[in-house]
Amino acid sequence: MTLAMDRDSLNAFLARDFEQIAPDFAVESVSEDVLIARLRVGHAHLRPGGTVSGPSMFALADLAIYTAILSRIGPVALAVTSNASIDFLRKPRSETDLLAECRILKLGRLLAVGEALIFSEGLEAPVARCSMTYAIPPSG
Amino acid sequence: MTLAMDRDSLNAFLARDFEQIAPDFAVESVSEDVLIARLRVGHAHLRPGGTVSGPSMFALADLAIYTAILSRIGPVALAVTSNASIDFLRKPRSETDLLAECRILKLGRLLAVGEALIFSEGLEAPVARCSMTYAIPPSG
Amino acid sequence: MTLAMDRDSLNAFLARDFEQIAPDFAVESVSEDVLIARLRVGHAHLRPGGTVSGPSMFALADLAIYTAILSRIGPVALAVTSNASIDFLRKPRSETDLLAECRILKLGRLLAVGEALIFSEGLEAPVARCSMTYAIPPSG
Amino acid sequence: MTLAMDRDSLNAFLARDFEQIAPDFAVESVSEDVLIARLRVGHAHLRPGGTVSGPSMFALADLAIYTAILSRIGPVALAVTSNASIDFLRKPRSETDLLAECRILKLGRLLAVGEALIFSEGLEAPVARCSMTYAIPPSG
Repeated sequence: MTLAMDRDSLNAFLARDFEQIAPDFAVESVSEDVLIARLRVGHAHLRPGGTVSGPSMFALADLAIYTAILSRIGPVALAVTSNASIDFLRKPRSETDLLAECRILKLGRLLAVGEALIFSEGLEAPVARCSMTYAIPPSG
Repeated sequence: MTLAMDRDSLNAFLARDFEQIAPDFAVESVSEDVLIARLRVGHAHLRPGGTVSGPSMFALADLAIYTAILSRIGPVALAVTSNASIDFLRKPRSETDLLAECRILKLGRLLAVGEALIFSEGLEAPVARCSMTYAIPPSG
Repeated sequence: MTLAMDRDSLNAFLARDFEQIAPDFAVESVSEDVLIARLRVGHAHLRPGGTVSGPSMFALADLAIYTAILSRIGPVALAVTSNASIDFLRKPRSETDLLAECRILKLGRLLAVGEALIFSEGLEAPVARCSMTYAIPPSG
Repeated sequence: MTLAMDRDSLNAFLARDFEQIAPDFAVESVSEDVLIARLRVGHAHLRPGGTVSGPSMFALADLAIYTAILSRIGPVALAVTSNASIDFLRKPRSETDLLAECRILKLGRLLAVGEALIFSEGLEAPVARCSMTYAIPPSG
């Protein structure tokens, strides 16, 4: 399998089409098996006690799985999230970036399913687990 | 059942403890049965095509269910989300606030479960459905 | 909206196409808004302590949401479950039938989403909440 | 880490406490990292078209994650499922056993979270993905 988009083209796509959030996120690496995305944790992502907010972790998982799908099918498709399930497992380490490690479980004609584990950078135990389904619009 | 926190005390709590996000959200009403929360949709919440982002809808559901739990048990508890499931049903109307309508299904000693339907203000069909579980720390 | 299948035709469909499970289940009522399905709780559904097993509750929710979709689109479609999320809220009452109360939240061309609350017959507080997505095959 | 229960003691536990379902299931192997459980697919698990039913796959995931937790904490605890999310990815191969491959993501004092991939025996692509949360009763 050849990837339709590599790391640089995915980051360029985010910068152009997702300018509101692009500064906070980056695709670190992408292969046929796994995509790694980073959330640059800043003040906007924090909650009382210094922990990273749930919606910020959700946003990271969404971006990781979305870009992993695009790496396979290219930037033309307008895939939309139809379902997500997330388990928050541990408190993230404060003032530490989060990394999402994403795998695609299914890439069908109409539906794609991916999952991500989220880690505080440098720690071994995951802080969250997420799975998401995307509906892929029929091509033209 | 008497509510432990009313609308004004919930909004004051958000302004104080969630200052990063408080300007975007408001508790509109709260009763024993249902809490309504608003997301003031702005540029930061939008995605290509003018739709509201999934993480923004997730954040609204999280805030609605969290404040609904606090309305019952008061501001002392530090409840944390342990699980969430969300279905995105329809594209929200562009440049329109979102309203979440939240009900508590279980308020146990250790776990609370709530669900929310999210609507574009003024439209009848929901744009998303969400259920969340919160772990309530042991008091004492 | 006219229903494509009423209660009797749904039960006849179950008896014919789902003969392994049909004796345990029944559609009690169906309208444009809500479908009620029953699980006749027997020994096979029980777990230690007399509670109804999680998979039995899952099966009831699946049957309720599936038949609610068929009541709208008719028996020709071969819809398949693509995603389910279930929260177990309370221990069901022992030796008591379960009732699922199901609503359809979305009936699209490709995806349908429904949710169900499950009750021990005669009790007010729900024992479980479930939401499911079905993929509807393109009609020929 | 030493396991509190090995494969034989888990299967003996199932035969004693889950006699209704024990003949259909078996723990194949268990280690610190992964537990493999089998569903012996029979007529009762099938649906029209020869596919294995969703509730049967749910039951397999539930059993796999439950026994994986017991392998760590022993048979005394009466853990109950509080939440489950399942994605059905592909149609299982007909007349073929299913295998669930389960990992524990969190084993807390009050909550445990595990995930399972389900495969038709001998095939590489998973037919389902499931994550579940169990509430662990406080020990006396």
